[in-house]
Amino acid sequence: MRVSELAAAADVPLATVKFYLREGLLMPGTATSRTRANYDEQHLERLRLVRALVETGGLGLREVRSVLAALDDPPTSPHELLGVAHAALPPPVAASDPPPDTAEVERFLEGVGWGDCLPPSLLASLAQAVAAVRAAGLALTPDELTGYADAAYRAAVTDVAVARRADSPAQALHTVIVGTVLVDEVLATLRRIAQQVVSTQALARTTPPDTTSADTAVREPVSRVVASQE
Amino acid sequence: MRVSELAAAADVPLATVKFYLREGLLMPGTATSRTRANYDEQHLERLRLVRALVETGGLGLREVRSVLAALDDPPTSPHELLGVAHAALPPPVAASDPPPDTAEVERFLEGVGWGDCLPPSLLASLAQAVAAVRAAGLALTPDELTGYADAAYRAAVTDVAVARRADSPAQALHTVIVGTVLVDEVLATLRRIAQQVVSTQALARTTPPDTTSADTAVREPVSRVVASQE
Repeated sequence: MRVSELAAAADVPLATVKFYLREGLLMPGTATSRTRANYDEQHLERLRLVRALVETGGLGLREVRSVLAALDDPPTSPHELLGVAHAALPPPVAASDPPPDTAEVERFLEGVGWGDCLPPSLLASLAQAVAAVRAAGLALTPDELTGYADAAYRAAVTDVAVARRADSPAQALHTVIVGTVLVDEVLATLRRIAQQVVSTQALARTTPPDTTSADTAVREPVSRVVASQE
Repeated sequence: MRVSELAAAADVPLATVKFYLREGLLMPGTATSRTRANYDEQHLERLRLVRALVETGGLGLREVRSVLAALDDPPTSPHELLGVAHAALPPPVAASDPPPDTAEVERFLEGVGWGDCLPPSLLASLAQAVAAVRAAGLALTPDELTGYADAAYRAAVTDVAVARRADSPAQALHTVIVGTVLVDEVLATLRRIAQQVVSTQALARTTPPDTTSADTAVREPVSRVVASQE
């Protein structure tokens, strides 16, 4: 297909496609004349990926380039997969200068049994994210952090299950990188929706006499579905 | 304290403090002379909050203003709390034009028992976040979405528990707004760390003979801690 058809197929403005081509985020098509080139399914896939990383993932051009370079050279060992994926992605919170003190979050991670071999960029990201919550006036106690770690663990179980179903190292890497950066937005939205669900349940329980176990009632909606699929 | 002391106390550049003052994100101090003003603890708290929302939360000036306006006028009914908080915050994924088709995510949310009274901006955010994951080449099946909904639910249980411990409607609103936008980054970082933990466990299980139940082994680290705190 021509570049205009490629743009239409991906629902991306033509000017944006040309910009991605100039920046090397999209590989050139096969030239069919001095001014025309042909594009195929691979171009369409790459274009959709770049678009999603930029628009929804909020990655900058340099970060997209780092992701694409990793995807074009996947590690063959599953042991290296996450290291490569996490190195290609920017950490959720960029490193401060000077780097933050990570002693508290390291102790916390040790405490939940997650202390081994964590990359410094993720430790720094966690320390800064926690410091920002506290600077804004919230306590964020170890109990609360543990609640969030439990939530993150459940998301990661799904992440890893999806990656392990991949047919090839290249596909597994694609799944981990894209899933990590783009599913963050799915999770953030589901969390806001879940806040409304939990809050409504909590308010309902305080109005009439409580006839059910609090814990069962609070966890019911999703657990029921999860159980029915197991 | 003087403006320079305020800046030093919050570890924010003086020029940034002056910018926040000009933009009305920080309330003026009490004038002590034609060119000097006095600032107190309230200014320091507000400055730290604005800084965290901008730097870590990634909010724009207009969004910070909307958050501050909500914080200055908290609803008295707990039923309105989340509505006000979510209206003040930008949705994780901004609305597209034309708005996305939300039929599939509405059916999904009905299926997990979360179908009631969801604000259109969150439905649109979820539909767009899911569409972006799919455009980037991942299937994101209903089972996987359910796994992520379960994770989000666990985060929300902690969110709501924290908000319900607040002393006043104003403090509860502050907790929900700040917690929602800033804890997103804590969760995103913990998710990447948890991916490494889950992946290492999964790889370890495939190497030697598996002597434990897969489910127990995968969920062990955090569950153990959660159980010991209950």
